[in-house]
Amino acid sequence: MPHESSVPGSCYFYYPRLVCVVGVRDEAKHTTNFTPVAWTTPLSSDPPLFGICLSPSTYSHQLVLKTGEFTVNFLSHEHAALAEALGKLSGRDTDKVRALKLELEPGQTLSTPSLAVAYACAECVLLERHHVGDQTLLVGEVQRIHTSPGTFDADGVLRLEQLNPLLYLGSNRYATTDAASLHRPGSGAKPR
Amino acid sequence: MPHESSVPGSCYFYYPRLVCVVGVRDEAKHTTNFTPVAWTTPLSSDPPLFGICLSPSTYSHQLVLKTGEFTVNFLSHEHAALAEALGKLSGRDTDKVRALKLELEPGQTLSTPSLAVAYACAECVLLERHHVGDQTLLVGEVQRIHTSPGTFDADGVLRLEQLNPLLYLGSNRYATTDAASLHRPGSGAKPR
Repeated sequence: MPHESSVPGSCYFYYPRLVCVVGVRDEAKHTTNFTPVAWTTPLSSDPPLFGICLSPSTYSHQLVLKTGEFTVNFLSHEHAALAEALGKLSGRDTDKVRALKLELEPGQTLSTPSLAVAYACAECVLLERHHVGDQTLLVGEVQRIHTSPGTFDADGVLRLEQLNPLLYLGSNRYATTDAASLHRPGSGAKPR
Repeated sequence: MPHESSVPGSCYFYYPRLVCVVGVRDEAKHTTNFTPVAWTTPLSSDPPLFGICLSPSTYSHQLVLKTGEFTVNFLSHEHAALAEALGKLSGRDTDKVRALKLELEPGQTLSTPSLAVAYACAECVLLERHHVGDQTLLVGEVQRIHTSPGTFDADGVLRLEQLNPLLYLGSNRYATTDAASLHRPGSGAKPR
């Protein structure tokens, strides 16, 4: 395959990625701020760690350092407009829960709620943080996972025929998976 | 939406994720080792940093620390079997380039080649590493990006109608995107 060469920043080679809505308690305002983040990754199995990248300039970054906990919420494709709206508003001047009439579910191990509309969410306690370039990698230890019944197989794999996860492509584009494309090339080792 | 609560590790809530094939020079064996990694994330825009998680026990981890550089290669859906095969073999006892007849492209800024079959790849120099749980987060500074002509829009977004990226779901399942699902809910802020 012939290739064109370009400088870093010229294309979003790392998308599509799942949209992850990060929830953080805003104690001063008695609400919870929710913001979409696409730069996330599992970081460890044992202990179970999940990392999110936030710019130190963001309101959510400031809140996470105060509360020391956050929830990560995953949306289906039909909620692309919600993800977009959460990204446009700032928690500094808007109570997004009120403005977008978000239904919340109380945390089980945290004081931070999750989004009721999410098909999966994880409750995380901030374990450590690393300054990396222009972002901070916030490392959360997963305490509990909440999932909508029927959305994951017995072996823990998302059932694409039941649920179309929201994928972000960069710029203002979103898409989802093709359930018909699901396949199992072998029974072998897993990429990590 | 009602939710079921479970312990961490019970489900792959963080998939689907792009399969990223990491290439690292094996200087002692005069070859390059390629291994699929799904736990990756962009980490910074300026400087452009990309992170990959590897267990310290892996052969690739050992090689990256020796060479200080790696390539990240992204495959289309039709190459799921290749990703699976790369994950099954170990570079410790197998020259995967030879065993799988991989066609390589020489690096432009690195001594590490990329996979000719990849639709996108990035050349990375190891900048720093962080021990996080049972993994190491290896932070690469992106030097150059190579893409197949026509696979990305002028604004840098992957053209799903041209290219079906390989997504990993956990266990032995793979899928791709649904080009028909592509949409632009607004022209607003981007998730990050």
